[in-house]
Amino acid sequence: MMNRPALTALAATLPATVPFVGPEAQERQRGRPFRARIGANESGFGPSPAVKAAIAEAAGDVWKYADPENHDLKAALAAHLGVEPENITVGEGIDGLLGLIVRLFVEPGQPVVTSLGAYPTFNYHVAGFGGHLVSVPYLDDRENLQGLADAARRENAPLVYLSNPDNPMGTWWEAAEISRLIEALPETTLLVLDEAYGETAPASAIPPLDVARPNVLRMRTFSKAYGLAGLRCGYAIGEAETIRAFDKVRNHFGVNRIAQTAALAALADQDYLFSVIGSVAACRDRIAAIAEANGLKPLPSATNFVTFDCGGDSAFALKIMQALIARDVFVRKPMAPVLDRCIRVSVGPDAAIDLFEQMLPDALTAARS
Amino acid sequence: MMNRPALTALAATLPATVPFVGPEAQERQRGRPFRARIGANESGFGPSPAVKAAIAEAAGDVWKYADPENHDLKAALAAHLGVEPENITVGEGIDGLLGLIVRLFVEPGQPVVTSLGAYPTFNYHVAGFGGHLVSVPYLDDRENLQGLADAARRENAPLVYLSNPDNPMGTWWEAAEISRLIEALPETTLLVLDEAYGETAPASAIPPLDVARPNVLRMRTFSKAYGLAGLRCGYAIGEAETIRAFDKVRNHFGVNRIAQTAALAALADQDYLFSVIGSVAACRDRIAAIAEANGLKPLPSATNFVTFDCGGDSAFALKIMQALIARDVFVRKPMAPVLDRCIRVSVGPDAAIDLFEQMLPDALTAARS
Repeated sequence: MMNRPALTALAATLPATVPFVGPEAQERQRGRPFRARIGANESGFGPSPAVKAAIAEAAGDVWKYADPENHDLKAALAAHLGVEPENITVGEGIDGLLGLIVRLFVEPGQPVVTSLGAYPTFNYHVAGFGGHLVSVPYLDDRENLQGLADAARRENAPLVYLSNPDNPMGTWWEAAEISRLIEALPETTLLVLDEAYGETAPASAIPPLDVARPNVLRMRTFSKAYGLAGLRCGYAIGEAETIRAFDKVRNHFGVNRIAQTAALAALADQDYLFSVIGSVAACRDRIAAIAEANGLKPLPSATNFVTFDCGGDSAFALKIMQALIARDVFVRKPMAPVLDRCIRVSVGPDAAIDLFEQMLPDALTAARS
Repeated sequence: MMNRPALTALAATLPATVPFVGPEAQERQRGRPFRARIGANESGFGPSPAVKAAIAEAAGDVWKYADPENHDLKAALAAHLGVEPENITVGEGIDGLLGLIVRLFVEPGQPVVTSLGAYPTFNYHVAGFGGHLVSVPYLDDRENLQGLADAARRENAPLVYLSNPDNPMGTWWEAAEISRLIEALPETTLLVLDEAYGETAPASAIPPLDVARPNVLRMRTFSKAYGLAGLRCGYAIGEAETIRAFDKVRNHFGVNRIAQTAALAALADQDYLFSVIGSVAACRDRIAAIAEANGLKPLPSATNFVTFDCGGDSAFALKIMQALIARDVFVRKPMAPVLDRCIRVSVGPDAAIDLFEQMLPDALTAARS
């Protein structure tokens, strides 16, 4: 056997996996495209027309490296949020930033606290840097704030992950409860507060920004309500010294030039954002009504998707998901115990939801047979 | 003093730096834009018209996450290169891939071999993962292949970095010499062969691809001759198991959708690539002639830039660079001992080179005074 370069001891233990199989891979396997793409919590309402125009206009400038300091975007975000540019870092989506956070704050073997069934990509990064995942079960389909705080204290964890509003359940906590969690955490525990769905949540769910506090990072993205998932542009808001740490390890030229341009244009078009938020809310209601009309139980949602309890076990929910996929409707489902009785449907334009409405009764029949 | 989350022991030792200060930062400091952007080895000839059209057409699709498997781009690259898709991984520029390589193969404290004055971003990643850099000086303005092989053996290094053609000097080795280096390396040493400038090099400088060999990764990019620096799309070609390791740690959705679309369109327009390669060669000759006309000594170049010996010490070359910058001509220079007697000028359209030609005599006078 030929000798070969050795992976690090840690890398050798890691599987070569994808946290999510994309709809394109499923389409290749199926041999035909989906007719409704409502499984990945994308915004089927698309980006603002101003964003599309900005992208087309910037197409000729792609020969230039983007500004590695992301200066203009950070300045615009800071003005929008009422903080300073030094309180913001921009990265290749929240996914990319989560990897950097784990790398910066977690030594191999250290415990990291999250909810059982919460964001798989965070778990992927924790494993990727040798952290040890401590998972707290959901309570009544919401993340268990007291349980997370207790686990963080007990484990003396450097990191706690919380998504509010929550993915994959769509549920949320009010800001006062989140603030109570923050107060309950050790000062040496960094709370990664993922607010990817913050724009579609009630204002009462989002605590005020407090950039004096070193142990909270607020994670935001242009992937959801702004409709730029394919461009990979997320940001973290926090205390200046915590934010500065990203400059130690980030891929400085990593945020694509078109992403920066599009994010600036998206941020400037708040009217469009508000119209999308309205469409999202209306579509959530419609998805919930469709679920109820079919005897399923939708959970309350502050996100751009609706998760519903299919009233059976994991195998039953899986069959429904597969039956929808077989009918060209791309949806997903939670995989962790208890949550896995549900499936999850993202909002989208009428045509996509029409197809879901049309196919769901058949899919249920198929799943029950 | 308030307690705060602790950085890892390694992260605490790292500076919060930028490997390169971008021209935009300099423009902000100067308070006015550059009139010639010929300092970052970008392609001022721009991307193919087909790329611009593809970007504009794809602008409406940015709400969709990109395919995390980069399937279509890998398939197109594989067909173009005569290898299998399993021999290719795509990442956020070569920069992003270099970080993953160091993470996968270098344990903290292990030695990593490179040339003294070679690519700073590689060194940044080595430091970022706790590797120990062993630097081999250039020999007559070329990377010292024998010295690199000797150092790799002596140190039992897991990684050796080599750029061919070389940045920042522009010089190159013929394929036979590179192949000799490969044969001289231990089988357990991975050669990171950075061929970012491969398209503008003589064909005789590029060894045939050998994807049966586990210890060589060939690094390529759309940033240089293809004119897509701002989009962040690089790729590595290698043996399937070595390539598969990237899936253990990469940011799966990290390659932006517009980047994938543009790279596909760029690859399909080889006629445009050939025309750019012609323009690059002609422009290199012109830059060299301008340098010679001003008493400076251009080095041979197989890249999209020309480095020239200013005939003095580092301080003199620095003054010339600063004088050009003061005259609105963005250029850069090597910073390592011996190399630092040079400045480096990237190719670009006539107007940019005209301004360089116009300003160089003045800049030299200023530097000498």
